Amino acid sequence: MSKIGVHSFVWSAGSSRAELEKALESTHKLGFKLIEFSYLDPAQVDVGWLSGRLRDLGLDVAISMGLPPEGDISSDDGAVVAKGVDILDKAVALVRDLGGSKLAGILSSSHGKQERTLTRKGWDTSVATLSKVADRARAAGVTLNLEIVNRFESNMLNTAAQGMAYIRDTGASNIFLHLDTFHMNIEEADVGLAIRHAADRIGYVHIGESHRGYLGTGTIDFSAIFDALVAIGWDDYVTFESFSTTIVDKDLSLKTAIWRNLWTDNVALAGHAHRFIELGLQTARRKAELVAMPHLPA
Amino acid sequence: MSKIGVHSFVWSAGSSRAELEKALESTHKLGFKLIEFSYLDPAQVDVGWLSGRLRDLGLDVAISMGLPPEGDISSDDGAVVAKGVDILDKAVALVRDLGGSKLAGILSSSHGKQERTLTRKGWDTSVATLSKVADRARAAGVTLNLEIVNRFESNMLNTAAQGMAYIRDTGASNIFLHLDTFHMNIEEADVGLAIRHAADRIGYVHIGESHRGYLGTGTIDFSAIFDALVAIGWDDYVTFESFSTTIVDKDLSLKTAIWRNLWTDNVALAGHAHRFIELGLQTARRKAELVAMPHLPA
Amino acid sequence: MSKIGVHSFVWSAGSSRAELEKALESTHKLGFKLIEFSYLDPAQVDVGWLSGRLRDLGLDVAISMGLPPEGDISSDDGAVVAKGVDILDKAVALVRDLGGSKLAGILSSSHGKQERTLTRKGWDTSVATLSKVADRARAAGVTLNLEIVNRFESNMLNTAAQGMAYIRDTGASNIFLHLDTFHMNIEEADVGLAIRHAADRIGYVHIGESHRGYLGTGTIDFSAIFDALVAIGWDDYVTFESFSTTIVDKDLSLKTAIWRNLWTDNVALAGHAHRFIELGLQTARRKAELVAMPHLPA
Amino acid sequence: MSKIGVHSFVWSAGSSRAELEKALESTHKLGFKLIEFSYLDPAQVDVGWLSGRLRDLGLDVAISMGLPPEGDISSDDGAVVAKGVDILDKAVALVRDLGGSKLAGILSSSHGKQERTLTRKGWDTSVATLSKVADRARAAGVTLNLEIVNRFESNMLNTAAQGMAYIRDTGASNIFLHLDTFHMNIEEADVGLAIRHAADRIGYVHIGESHRGYLGTGTIDFSAIFDALVAIGWDDYVTFESFSTTIVDKDLSLKTAIWRNLWTDNVALAGHAHRFIELGLQTARRKAELVAMPHLPA
Repeated sequence: MSKIGVHSFVWSAGSSRAELEKALESTHKLGFKLIEFSYLDPAQVDVGWLSGRLRDLGLDVAISMGLPPEGDISSDDGAVVAKGVDILDKAVALVRDLGGSKLAGILSSSHGKQERTLTRKGWDTSVATLSKVADRARAAGVTLNLEIVNRFESNMLNTAAQGMAYIRDTGASNIFLHLDTFHMNIEEADVGLAIRHAADRIGYVHIGESHRGYLGTGTIDFSAIFDALVAIGWDDYVTFESFSTTIVDKDLSLKTAIWRNLWTDNVALAGHAHRFIELGLQTARRKAELVAMPHLPA
Repeated sequence: MSKIGVHSFVWSAGSSRAELEKALESTHKLGFKLIEFSYLDPAQVDVGWLSGRLRDLGLDVAISMGLPPEGDISSDDGAVVAKGVDILDKAVALVRDLGGSKLAGILSSSHGKQERTLTRKGWDTSVATLSKVADRARAAGVTLNLEIVNRFESNMLNTAAQGMAYIRDTGASNIFLHLDTFHMNIEEADVGLAIRHAADRIGYVHIGESHRGYLGTGTIDFSAIFDALVAIGWDDYVTFESFSTTIVDKDLSLKTAIWRNLWTDNVALAGHAHRFIELGLQTARRKAELVAMPHLPA
Repeated sequence: MSKIGVHSFVWSAGSSRAELEKALESTHKLGFKLIEFSYLDPAQVDVGWLSGRLRDLGLDVAISMGLPPEGDISSDDGAVVAKGVDILDKAVALVRDLGGSKLAGILSSSHGKQERTLTRKGWDTSVATLSKVADRARAAGVTLNLEIVNRFESNMLNTAAQGMAYIRDTGASNIFLHLDTFHMNIEEADVGLAIRHAADRIGYVHIGESHRGYLGTGTIDFSAIFDALVAIGWDDYVTFESFSTTIVDKDLSLKTAIWRNLWTDNVALAGHAHRFIELGLQTARRKAELVAMPHLPA
Repeated sequence: MSKIGVHSFVWSAGSSRAELEKALESTHKLGFKLIEFSYLDPAQVDVGWLSGRLRDLGLDVAISMGLPPEGDISSDDGAVVAKGVDILDKAVALVRDLGGSKLAGILSSSHGKQERTLTRKGWDTSVATLSKVADRARAAGVTLNLEIVNRFESNMLNTAAQGMAYIRDTGASNIFLHLDTFHMNIEEADVGLAIRHAADRIGYVHIGESHRGYLGTGTIDFSAIFDALVAIGWDDYVTFESFSTTIVDKDLSLKTAIWRNLWTDNVALAGHAHRFIELGLQTARRKAELVAMPHLPA
């Protein structure tokens, strides 16, 4: 049975101790079992304190990030690649230091709207580079989860099938897919089938609506997604992600093009999301059991 | 905003005081606002006591029934019609005496698998007869809600459009449709559109799954149904109905062909149903609001 | 790639040579590759002639039937069981004599609304009896395909899971499931999953809408069904079935409760159905291919 | 009954006479009734010849475009706005000279990923500016159809509700919405409801899949869309649009982030699309008729 997480930007885009504390408490209070942070700079955030608070509250943690253009590991420029490696290594260290095990997000190339098609050389550079980062991450007990995002946020891994090919090329055992329903709704031919095909290489799952607001108020068929997660026996985290102009992270809000105010009350939003995911998964499990029952005569 | 009811056969098919008391308490405890009983014989049940208990618990009540073959008001046999009228009049009285306002179910002809096509004469007899029952019901403050059921349970009113035609023919102001999602899934071309078309003549709504078990574990697209209820501004009762071999009413279980054990724990079932309907309606309302928001720049 | 068939009752319920000839020609003209007949009595129909016409037109054939109460092989009455065996053996012979290989329909018990729950003894009697019929059918090169029908037409095999259990109990290698989307829409928790689970024991498929009229004008999610058929690699027949009061078979129309006129022009209906199924399967195949494409950079 | 169009980029991104001729012939041959061109420069294309060929083949025409950053009419820079007005006026003239009546696309601001939130001032400037363009367009018998696009292609009109507000602000009678299912899948809370709400202000419709490839091979529920179009009595054009790396328009392919090869054979693609839309609309119409039929006894 899956556990439910929440992205901290539902609570705040800030990283002051007070903001983090509020995010942790809200997460815990609403019954989520994991909090996902966008990369936090250890120079600004007391990692030891945060790690302790996570432990106190019994919360698991994941870190997500998107490589910046100046750290794009698919670049032809070796200095840019080296910068990307440094960013990734630091993020792996942060995950480890916080007591987590998952680094997620756009780890194989730059996050944002690209202006050219990816080249084969870029793919190969990225694969070779990330393989080595993965070796070090393995030693740190950290998995790398490649977020499959829509065409407007990356020109490299837009589908689970592309991600699977990338993972095969790395040969790494600790690189997995980070699937996100918002992106899958745009790119996958069949979201349920994509999940089934990728089953043994999924490492992390984001649950987000088609417009990034309240679950169930958009175009995504979440029943089909919960059915697929049950079908592959997914028992790891599904993390709720939502964006509104109510909470703005300067960098991420621009890259993800958040122009509309889809909600203002984040407690109502997150409570609804938790009920929606929990009821959805519970119902999907019951359906899967029912379809297999022989119902023999007494 | 709709209120949620539950059919008493989720709790018990019995009508002893202890069984009724348990049904009332379970209904109340799980947050339902109405309990629906299949017709209760005042010779067997203390109507005054029951009415008082409903009042004590703040519960509304509805009575449902299906006319038996020997009381089919579409019959060519006047004695059979008269018997049906008597049954209907008694049911109207029961509704009134319990402090309710809704009589529901298969009121225009016999409930069960028919062996011949309905004739025009049968339709006319039924219309003329029910019009008069409706006059008396109006005086008692009771509405007649014609359940639209699948082809295997009636040969008369299988679609909302047929029910609308019937109501028009009666000219009565207190005859409405009793829509039921289980039946609509079999008979309606488009469940959401059928609800929209019938909007101002819907008097009562049953929410049941395609196989009559747990909501969301069958083939019905409940999102579309909740969307349609929100679209027409439905703010009256939606009542959960489910059947399993766990609880058997000799007559109804046979007419509705309940052969499988789809659940055993009725508290878990009803709790799930309440959460499912409440979250579904809440989400549909939010979706309807969102689609109309202009989201102008600040 | 699946082949598309059509039930002869789309054309006519009659079995005169002229009626059969018309049905054959219409089937062929509209591009169907198989015609399904309800059991035809060799005393009334020239089987040799029919077999020849099928061959001339390059049409495959299937025979379907439902056991009558007086031939119910789950009965406690040995004479009734013997009658059922006789009926089945004759139907097997007809399939063989027509050059076909599939007997389909309600072969394990009586077709129609039942008035009591099936007993364990009835199940065992049916299993033991049909096993022996299957032995003889194997010698004739005929498979027995158990139609899984809704609760109002049988109290025995309402779900694919029940059918699988039945087949396992027989131990026969030539008994398969005959799935029908009209019935699945009522009984299965998840139509796509039921198809996936039953994959290697499906022998025949009926495509029918929720109200038995035009495909796509009811509540069934045919995309999900075509996806599932593609997922299991189904390359055998899918046969279109539809009923309207326009064409009445006295026995079957009553058992299946056909009260409404859902179409009058059967050529328009069948042409639409052929386009709908062909386009649906073609699209589902393309989707399944697309979801697996790695789309690597050039 | 709607008529079906096709975007010329299905055939070619070029505008040589040979390429245009091929696009026209393919459009006509496959049964489409309208061809949509991205803006064609009259300095490069013989408009008189093209207009004649359209007339010869009995084809209607629409022109679509997205304003460039240097012609963004929501800009604070008057020179940029003036440039935009010039571009729009020229496009209106092209529509008129080709014998068409519809200018479509992103006409109210710049097409492409924006790096800041739209201001109220930008909205007002755009509204005031386009109102005047609309006056001149009316004189030319041309309507302006504002394409509602996803957040990554504009920060102004992402939903039909925003577009309705914009149109109200202009007060113009010849500004309408250009809805596109690809974009609606990302931005609208409920695609069917958005269409119903916008009914009397829809001027043009694009039918595109979630990943911009073959219809029916993505996540869009086209049945719901066809149902909504039938519900509002849409009888104007629905135009198929699809992008693949097979056919590249340097500007548009980058702005719309086309990285994957979703098809190579455009004749197969377009033939499939025509069949898909035609069958989908035909089926939706039949469904809408069926749900309203009273089916009275004979």
